[in-house]
Amino acid sequence: MNQQVEPIQRIALQLSRLPGIGQKSALRLAYHIVSLPEDQVHDLAVALWEGRKAVHFCARCGNYTEGELCSVCADPERRNDQLCVVRDPKDVAALERMRDYRGLYHVLGGTLSPMNGVGPEDIRIRELLERLSSEPIQEVILATNPDIEGEATATYIARLVKPLGVRVTRIAHGVPVGSDLEYADEVTLAKALEGRREV
Amino acid sequence: MNQQVEPIQRIALQLSRLPGIGQKSALRLAYHIVSLPEDQVHDLAVALWEGRKAVHFCARCGNYTEGELCSVCADPERRNDQLCVVRDPKDVAALERMRDYRGLYHVLGGTLSPMNGVGPEDIRIRELLERLSSEPIQEVILATNPDIEGEATATYIARLVKPLGVRVTRIAHGVPVGSDLEYADEVTLAKALEGRREV
Repeated sequence: MNQQVEPIQRIALQLSRLPGIGQKSALRLAYHIVSLPEDQVHDLAVALWEGRKAVHFCARCGNYTEGELCSVCADPERRNDQLCVVRDPKDVAALERMRDYRGLYHVLGGTLSPMNGVGPEDIRIRELLERLSSEPIQEVILATNPDIEGEATATYIARLVKPLGVRVTRIAHGVPVGSDLEYADEVTLAKALEGRREV
Repeated sequence: MNQQVEPIQRIALQLSRLPGIGQKSALRLAYHIVSLPEDQVHDLAVALWEGRKAVHFCARCGNYTEGELCSVCADPERRNDQLCVVRDPKDVAALERMRDYRGLYHVLGGTLSPMNGVGPEDIRIRELLERLSSEPIQEVILATNPDIEGEATATYIARLVKPLGVRVTRIAHGVPVGSDLEYADEVTLAKALEGRREV
């Protein structure tokens, strides 16, 4: 005999497909959801579905937006000579939280990964080159993740962009602020030493 | 300036209301959800909303069900002389996973909690007494949680039910199977000693 009521199982199955939600948490959440007032569940379901439908990619940079252009591209006060290249829209959000960067973004929508069959034509590199020829960009800041795929993607783009006479920079790697040297891995420590500056 | 697109914020806000999902996880989930194909998000939203609408309480025991009676109450092969009293429908699911118990259930829908203003009239104790007078129940097994509220509720129900000439039992407390004595708290160890049996 099945222990769970079928609709609860259906909810749990759908939730368990989300990242970081295992089968046990999904079931616990499903039990919570059927115990909520109907209007709260309605609000949740509507937020998910309407939210998904409302969000698409910025025509210029590939960031998420509700309109034609994202809030960064639509902002006339942003510097249009700096372009920060990131993998995902959520990286844009992370950088924007800092409030220091005033330039524009270019979202690749992925990183090069020969193992997973992701080549240069599968991410928005062609669109990046088109922007470099049509926009007054002086500097490309490569802010892909400091992992193997992010480094490979940064190196690949640097080789393409440098010959165009555009300045190409890479974000610094090192020991995170507020962390403890003792807990930093060797690669991070090596990068921190390599990138040392005069004080 | 706001860093997140508004629909993503709406999704994150709704998700952060669920138990065990903090603001950071909610935002990470929201970014994941808008990156999914529309039909997958549609399936998720429909499962939540249709699932919530489909589930209600069993007219007899208070368990979750899609129909009039839950699968346990509707099963003619269950013993109708044993009644296991639990707090929530998910406790029924936990006990059913064991596959050993063949009697019926009574779901209280809560436990007595004077601190939170939950009195005997707020949980399904009256319905329990009605069942005891109309059904051929010989034994009431109190399976509320082994916490303060669960114990108080069990004691309260035992006092009401014993005078009716029905056998009243409480599930055993002790060291969980497969766990280590070293990690058991003192109250559990005391209960385990108190409940010791001849071998």
